[in-house]
Amino acid sequence: MEIVKGNGPITGEQIADQLNLTRATLRPDLAILTMAGYLDARPRVGYFYTGKTGTQLLTENLKKIHVRDYQSIPVVISANVSVYDAIVSMFLEDVGTLFVTDQSGCLAGVLSRKDLLRASIGKQELTAVPVNIIMTRMPNITVCEKDDLLIEAAKKLIDKQIDALPIVKETEKGLEIVGRLTKTNVTKAFVALANDE
Amino acid sequence: MEIVKGNGPITGEQIADQLNLTRATLRPDLAILTMAGYLDARPRVGYFYTGKTGTQLLTENLKKIHVRDYQSIPVVISANVSVYDAIVSMFLEDVGTLFVTDQSGCLAGVLSRKDLLRASIGKQELTAVPVNIIMTRMPNITVCEKDDLLIEAAKKLIDKQIDALPIVKETEKGLEIVGRLTKTNVTKAFVALANDE
Repeated sequence: MEIVKGNGPITGEQIADQLNLTRATLRPDLAILTMAGYLDARPRVGYFYTGKTGTQLLTENLKKIHVRDYQSIPVVISANVSVYDAIVSMFLEDVGTLFVTDQSGCLAGVLSRKDLLRASIGKQELTAVPVNIIMTRMPNITVCEKDDLLIEAAKKLIDKQIDALPIVKETEKGLEIVGRLTKTNVTKAFVALANDE
Repeated sequence: MEIVKGNGPITGEQIADQLNLTRATLRPDLAILTMAGYLDARPRVGYFYTGKTGTQLLTENLKKIHVRDYQSIPVVISANVSVYDAIVSMFLEDVGTLFVTDQSGCLAGVLSRKDLLRASIGKQELTAVPVNIIMTRMPNITVCEKDDLLIEAAKKLIDKQIDALPIVKETEKGLEIVGRLTKTNVTKAFVALANDE
């Protein structure tokens, strides 16, 4: 490993020379290191160091999971709905986050349980206040796309301290809402990994 | 692999015989299969099949992570606190779940944002209703311990459709609350795995 790291690309013969061994003796060891992913080999070039640690190789599997593999259906309301009706929708649909659309049906805002709870202990009449007064709006909405890596979306949930991301698709009119990605989805992915699914 | 699967435990010599190869020729292949975890070898017994698939081997890493590695600090209130004050505590402490204790300081209930939001749109005066009226109580509380596997706790969060588990320790008086495990903690574990931490 140290020889390849310092001198790669290097042929099997050159490595054998440095170690005073025959190529045949060395071959099984090089095969193991190549198969395990620590070294890579190219015909007529030689062996080179991939720079990958064992844990990196193990966790590369995680990087094959995409948002589309674990997404949920989005629950959408329009911007003129009252806070009271939004809370009712949240219970009926049993979700923790609602997405709010503008007249053209594109993403205009996000409402979390926390936003609605904050409004509910305020002085205002919940049936009289429209959600567009209390929702999070662009450019403060964090979004993802269905082809994004799940780990990238999970990182956004942690970094922004939010419970859900709208999964969007860019259109001429704005961002179309095509899905919902939550910490529940990420937790399911975690459980599925361990279950060998 | 097929020979070992069908005839294991079997010695290297016996495998070589079946394949009409020398033991020396076979040795690197057996070394690779053993190192990768597909086969296991015992001195004076021979090779046997571990029954593990590639994905199983990759995800065994997940089974080394415990609740204690990702737990959060619990936020606790007593059972006679009003729903209004509980909502205020939830915002001050910035958590999604509160744990409720009895007179001896042991676990008596759990309050989620959903419970508090449901109460807040009810007809009752929030400052007059104590949390013990609306909280989830034993035996309906799902708990975990700090030495549990994180995947077992994550599975409970998914199966019970809840956001957080109290991490408890059994005492003579009841369940002492020693921590809090949420979908945020599981999401952080997922991100950390991918980041090679």
